[in-house]
Amino acid sequence: MRVEESARRIAALRRRLADLELDGLVGTAPENIRYLSGFSGSLAYLVISQDAAEILGDSRYWLQMEAEAPGFTLVRSGPSQGLWPLVARRVKALGLRRVGFESQHLTVDQHQRLMAALPGEIQLTATTGLVEGFRMLKSADEVELLRNVARIAGRAFDRVRPAIRPGLRERDVAFLLEQTFRELGADGPAFDTIVAAGERGALPHGRASDRVLERGDMVVVDFGASAGGYQSDSTRTIVVGEPTPEQRQVIDAVRRAQSESMALMKPGVPADAVDRRAREALAGDPDAFQHGLGHGIGLMVHERPFLSPSDQTPLQAGMVITNEPGIYRSGWGGVRLEEMVLVTETEPEVLTPASREVSVE
Amino acid sequence: MRVEESARRIAALRRRLADLELDGLVGTAPENIRYLSGFSGSLAYLVISQDAAEILGDSRYWLQMEAEAPGFTLVRSGPSQGLWPLVARRVKALGLRRVGFESQHLTVDQHQRLMAALPGEIQLTATTGLVEGFRMLKSADEVELLRNVARIAGRAFDRVRPAIRPGLRERDVAFLLEQTFRELGADGPAFDTIVAAGERGALPHGRASDRVLERGDMVVVDFGASAGGYQSDSTRTIVVGEPTPEQRQVIDAVRRAQSESMALMKPGVPADAVDRRAREALAGDPDAFQHGLGHGIGLMVHERPFLSPSDQTPLQAGMVITNEPGIYRSGWGGVRLEEMVLVTETEPEVLTPASREVSVE
Repeated sequence: MRVEESARRIAALRRRLADLELDGLVGTAPENIRYLSGFSGSLAYLVISQDAAEILGDSRYWLQMEAEAPGFTLVRSGPSQGLWPLVARRVKALGLRRVGFESQHLTVDQHQRLMAALPGEIQLTATTGLVEGFRMLKSADEVELLRNVARIAGRAFDRVRPAIRPGLRERDVAFLLEQTFRELGADGPAFDTIVAAGERGALPHGRASDRVLERGDMVVVDFGASAGGYQSDSTRTIVVGEPTPEQRQVIDAVRRAQSESMALMKPGVPADAVDRRAREALAGDPDAFQHGLGHGIGLMVHERPFLSPSDQTPLQAGMVITNEPGIYRSGWGGVRLEEMVLVTETEPEVLTPASREVSVE
Repeated sequence: MRVEESARRIAALRRRLADLELDGLVGTAPENIRYLSGFSGSLAYLVISQDAAEILGDSRYWLQMEAEAPGFTLVRSGPSQGLWPLVARRVKALGLRRVGFESQHLTVDQHQRLMAALPGEIQLTATTGLVEGFRMLKSADEVELLRNVARIAGRAFDRVRPAIRPGLRERDVAFLLEQTFRELGADGPAFDTIVAAGERGALPHGRASDRVLERGDMVVVDFGASAGGYQSDSTRTIVVGEPTPEQRQVIDAVRRAQSESMALMKPGVPADAVDRRAREALAGDPDAFQHGLGHGIGLMVHERPFLSPSDQTPLQAGMVITNEPGIYRSGWGGVRLEEMVLVTETEPEVLTPASREVSVE
C-alpha cells in the first residue's frame, strides 16, 4: 500500500474517533490492521490516537512490519511478554483515557485480559465496525486491485472451461482453476472453490467432491482468486453438453433476477431493496434462494454491505458488491450466477469477466 | 467422523459441564463444532445439554449438516432470522438456566447480542477452552488422520526436493509443493507455504516471494498439508549446493537443540520444560529463536498445548506437538527444523517423514 493511502485512512479514522469523543483505538482485526497499516501478517495490534500510530508485534514479525507498515511506529514485544500488557502499557504511555476497542472482533476472553491489564481510570469503550465502515467504500487503488484479481480469476475460468468434460471429477475442475489462478499471478484461491454437479448443485455451499461429471450435468462453479490482499468471487453455472429446456428455463429465470436487481445498484438505493427486487423476480419459484443476494468484497470475501433483508445501508459510488441469486431444487440441481459489481455515479459496472456461455462440449 | 466418536466426545463434554454445574453449552468456535459434531462448514452453532445435542444453521448448510452431523438434531433458522435469537429460543425451550459460552471465541459484540436475546433469569457463564482441552489428546482415529496428512506432505516434499535448483523463485517451490499436496490426496496447504532463501531465512514467517534461488543459498521451507480437516506442519532447511562450514555448524546446533528437547517429550513433563531445554541448548547464540518451541496440532495448525515459557501443561500420551527450534541471523539467513511429534507412553514418535538431507544439487 502506498504510504499516502495509509495516511489518508488513518486521518479518516482520527476524525471519526474525535466525533465519538474517543482518545484512541486499539485495533485487533487483521483485515483492519492491513487496511490501516499495510501489515499483512496474522498477529499484530494497533494503538492509534490523534498523535500516535503504533503497531505492536513479536519478533517473528518485526522485519515484515518495518517493511510493510512504514507509516507506523513499531513497538517490539519481548519474548514471553504477552501482547495485552504491552497494549495496556502503550495506552497509558500515550495518556489516553477513553479508548475504543473493536467489539466485533475482540473475544470476551481477550477483553477481560485487556481490562485486567489497564488501570481503572482508563475507560475501554466498545466500537463496532468503525474501520469496516470505511472499508465499504473502495479507493481508486482498491478498485484497481479488485479489478485485477477479478480479471485473473476470469481468465483462469476461460482457460479451464474448455477442459471441462465428462469423466473429470469436481475436484479436478477446482484444482485446475486454483492452479491457473497462480499461474496468472494470484497468490491462490480466495476460498475453497465450489464445483457442484448435478443434484449436488442444490447445495449452495457444496465444495468440490470426487463426483465425476457426466454428460448432461449442470455444474455450479463458484470461484475466486486472491492477489495483493484483495479477493474475487464469481459464479458460473454451465451444462456439460446441451442444456435441457428445464435447465435453460431455470438459468434464464436466475439471470433475469440478477439483471433486474443489478439495475438497482446505484447510489442512494438501500441494500435491502436490491435483495428484495431479486426475490420478487423469483417469487413464483418455491426453490428460489434463501441466502442473501450479495455481499461487499475487498480485503475479505464477505464484508459490508450485505444485499439482504436486514441491511438498509444506502449504496454509494465506490462500493464493490456481489450479486448472486440462485435456484436450488433438491434432488435435481441448482443454478447460481454471481458477478462483482462496482457501484458508480452512472451505471453499475461488472468487474468479473469470465465467460457466461452455458454449454461446454 | 464416525458417529460413535462424536458420541464419545459429547459424553466427555457432558461430564465436564456437570462438574462445572452448567446445564449446557452454546458452542460457536468452528473447530470445536467440527470436533463435536463432524460438521465442517463455516457457520453453525451448537446447543448441548445433558439431554440434547442440537446444531443450528441456515439453509445453505442444512443438507451438509444432515450428512455430516448425524448425532445432532438439526434446528433450521428461517430466512432473515438471526441465529442469536434462535440460540436464545433453544436455550429457553430446553429449560437451561446456567449456560456456558466459549469466551475464547465469542466476540464482545456477539456476547451482547446473545445476552439481549436471553431472558434475564438465564445465567450466561464464560468458559475458556473447554473443548480445546479435550482436543489436546488425540484419539486413535485422529492420530491416523494426522499421520496420513503428515505422510502426504512428506512425500510431496521428497518429490519436489530434487527439482529445487538455482533459477527457481521461492514461490515456484511453494507452488510445486502445494500442487503436489493435492495430487497426493490432500485438500490443499494447511497454511501459506514459507520458502525463505538466503538472508530472507532470517524472517521466521517469510512467505514465499519472487526471490530467485542462487547456488549456495540456504533455504527454509516450512510447509503443511490439510486433509480430512487435519493439518500437518514441518520445516526443512536445505542448501542449494554444498553447505559452507558456517551453514553446517548452525544447522547442527539447531538439530542438537531439537533432539535434546524432543527427548523430553514424555508423559508428565511440563510443556515449558521442553521449551527451556531447547533454549538452553542454544544459550550461547544471540540469534537463537525467540518464538515458542512448538505447538499442538490437529484440526488447527496451532492449538494447545504450546511449548513456550508460559504453558505449564504436563504432556500426555496422545498429544501431537511440533518441535521447531531455529537460529535467525539478520542479513545472513536462518535455520529452522520442525517435526510433528506424537507423545507416547514410551519414546516420542516423529510423524513427519520428509527427507532431512541438507544439500540439494
